[in-house]
Amino acid sequence: MRPVSLDIIKEGPGLARAGILRTPHGDIQTPAFVAVGTKADIKGIKASEFKALGVQTLIANTYHLYLSPGEGLIEKAGGVGKFMGFDGPTMTDSGGFQVFSLGEGYGKKLSKFLPEAAAPEAGMAVFDEELATSHGKLAIIDEEGVSFTSHVDGSLHRFTPERSIEIQHKLGADIIFAFDECTSPAADEAYQKEASDRTHRWADRSLKAHRQNLSANAKQGIYGIVQGGRYAHLRIQSAKELAAMDFDGYGIGGSFSKHDILGILDKVNRELPKEKPRHLLGIGEPEDMFIGVEAGIDTFDCVLPTRNGRTGGIYTKQGKIQIPNAEYKEDWGPLDDGCTCPVCTEHTRAYIHHLFRTHEMLGPILASMHNIFFLTNLVAKIRQSILDGNFHAFRDTFLSSYAKVRT
Amino acid sequence: MRPVSLDIIKEGPGLARAGILRTPHGDIQTPAFVAVGTKADIKGIKASEFKALGVQTLIANTYHLYLSPGEGLIEKAGGVGKFMGFDGPTMTDSGGFQVFSLGEGYGKKLSKFLPEAAAPEAGMAVFDEELATSHGKLAIIDEEGVSFTSHVDGSLHRFTPERSIEIQHKLGADIIFAFDECTSPAADEAYQKEASDRTHRWADRSLKAHRQNLSANAKQGIYGIVQGGRYAHLRIQSAKELAAMDFDGYGIGGSFSKHDILGILDKVNRELPKEKPRHLLGIGEPEDMFIGVEAGIDTFDCVLPTRNGRTGGIYTKQGKIQIPNAEYKEDWGPLDDGCTCPVCTEHTRAYIHHLFRTHEMLGPILASMHNIFFLTNLVAKIRQSILDGNFHAFRDTFLSSYAKVRT
Repeated sequence: MRPVSLDIIKEGPGLARAGILRTPHGDIQTPAFVAVGTKADIKGIKASEFKALGVQTLIANTYHLYLSPGEGLIEKAGGVGKFMGFDGPTMTDSGGFQVFSLGEGYGKKLSKFLPEAAAPEAGMAVFDEELATSHGKLAIIDEEGVSFTSHVDGSLHRFTPERSIEIQHKLGADIIFAFDECTSPAADEAYQKEASDRTHRWADRSLKAHRQNLSANAKQGIYGIVQGGRYAHLRIQSAKELAAMDFDGYGIGGSFSKHDILGILDKVNRELPKEKPRHLLGIGEPEDMFIGVEAGIDTFDCVLPTRNGRTGGIYTKQGKIQIPNAEYKEDWGPLDDGCTCPVCTEHTRAYIHHLFRTHEMLGPILASMHNIFFLTNLVAKIRQSILDGNFHAFRDTFLSSYAKVRT
Repeated sequence: MRPVSLDIIKEGPGLARAGILRTPHGDIQTPAFVAVGTKADIKGIKASEFKALGVQTLIANTYHLYLSPGEGLIEKAGGVGKFMGFDGPTMTDSGGFQVFSLGEGYGKKLSKFLPEAAAPEAGMAVFDEELATSHGKLAIIDEEGVSFTSHVDGSLHRFTPERSIEIQHKLGADIIFAFDECTSPAADEAYQKEASDRTHRWADRSLKAHRQNLSANAKQGIYGIVQGGRYAHLRIQSAKELAAMDFDGYGIGGSFSKHDILGILDKVNRELPKEKPRHLLGIGEPEDMFIGVEAGIDTFDCVLPTRNGRTGGIYTKQGKIQIPNAEYKEDWGPLDDGCTCPVCTEHTRAYIHHLFRTHEMLGPILASMHNIFFLTNLVAKIRQSILDGNFHAFRDTFLSSYAKVRT
């Protein structure tokens, strides 16, 4: 019996399926939206409020928790769920996305990839500390792993597949991910192929490290991550290679360009074992989830509901609105008409507009709460439409309204 | 029948009394701690959580709400309570404290009081717009009222007793306050006397404006504010003059030096009508509340639980602690041992320490929630000790522990 497994209840249209994802800390009704809990918290929201927001599970970030408070402390707490006061299922990512995106994106001055002359040869498990510090924030990749500087204090760190799994074992989430290389959308095909091949070798090493080192009484499932950037044949090849490995489930990794991924998602998923759960990493806007579900995705995570919420972006059935805009100053309706979330049933647009205009932190909190509910509730409705056999009708009705006044 | 009245249930020791403060929006068990809701919200805390935190009522700030969103909008919402989604009793201050403290304190460069030559003559209801703008943030007092600049955009505004009451009528709180002049602790006796006398004239005008202009179907009680700075004879004189006016209750105004006030509080309260409620403005640390209750205070408000909470200061039965300090990194106990608040029953010190260290806004929120509960719960216990006839025993036990490791 796998620690994490999927019971498929009903299928179709396409590769869509409604199911129940069984985990050591409880069941997840799928398809499901997975809240992002970067530092073992959802921005501004207490764990005791998750249930009312429809949050069944969340994904925390290995990179962030490794840096602070450290995986050792979270192990002592009894795992990331217990640490944050949440008794439901949790996930942790592999740290790969943060390591590479911080290396690449930070300050937008340094590429993740150093000039040829400075980069270590593939296969050399060494890195030049002086070089790294002299260049500030960066990530240097070699066959063994990646060396990177902390975004907090610039200190040097190193992740390998084995180290990522060791950290994730201590973080103790129900679902963990193999260590992968998340490439730049600007990378060319040759580099994508090289990175994808390396990710497969890292997947194999992650899986071995997981099977060999997970303590006997611990229960965690591991997902492999399909990569390959925007190249369909690389994605399909990646899915085939990973499908041959004994993972408990699969993640589809991001390439920063979600439309490339969405277009080839069903081809990728056809290569993956049907009975195993599939998670789409970092993508989960309303319109994406219809595409993803029909292409066979079971779970989604996306940081946008809280990121939008913090600046006043609100999801409504008519599209996104900016609640700080002057037009909402005297709007006595709820954020989203007919919404049953704890924010919409208690507060008006005018009040939340006021909180944003006067820089009160309750504004971003209420906006984030509503947005999370909006997405968890939307996916719950998508699930129901699969069960009811009217997925396309529900999708068309939702999208025709959502697109209407979308900004 | 007054809109706001106090039923005294039990008295002693000293002037202490346990009672029920009746208001149009419900009863308040007194003595009670009143949460500060400056901009129609308690920092980071939803109105639906107030009950679990023991919050019976809150005091919002007329100055802030007048500037944004404006009293007209709140009137349209149905009053400050309805605007923020809270159906319990509310209070608004007169705006005096903010106007004067912003005028005086802002930037610490300008005195509230302009040089003689520049200050308008007493009795001149005029102000020099050019002068005010050229001097930046300030407040200019004359017999009619005060002209001041907004801390938000530097725009010029004017409050008079009549205007303060008009605004407070629109804000619609259950308990409103007469417009008063809140003097600097540095002011000399002659100025304190002058300001105190002016406050009495303003109290009379506030009361008249309230009685004449409150619409027939609106119900709000008005409190007069005792001033007089740190001079006992001025305070007593102030209490006598206000006691002779037909207020529904009384506030004791701050002078920035709480020890001066606490020392003469019982003398002041002996001059006030025993059957009317008394509110101590802006003072409410644990040790103060024992002194205040014994001196006859029914309600306290204090911004410190949220202000301390935002920077990690936590109230415990052993005194205040700084949760971001390294010593709490692996502390698996609750913020305050034995505390039954929604934070202490769900989260550890180690988790909240982590949230502060990683700059997550959930940290300040949880700290503020606990602190508010700590104070509302402490005053609830003080009330019970009056009812049980063991006020002094409870006080001594609490303070001996609280003082022990107080930082």
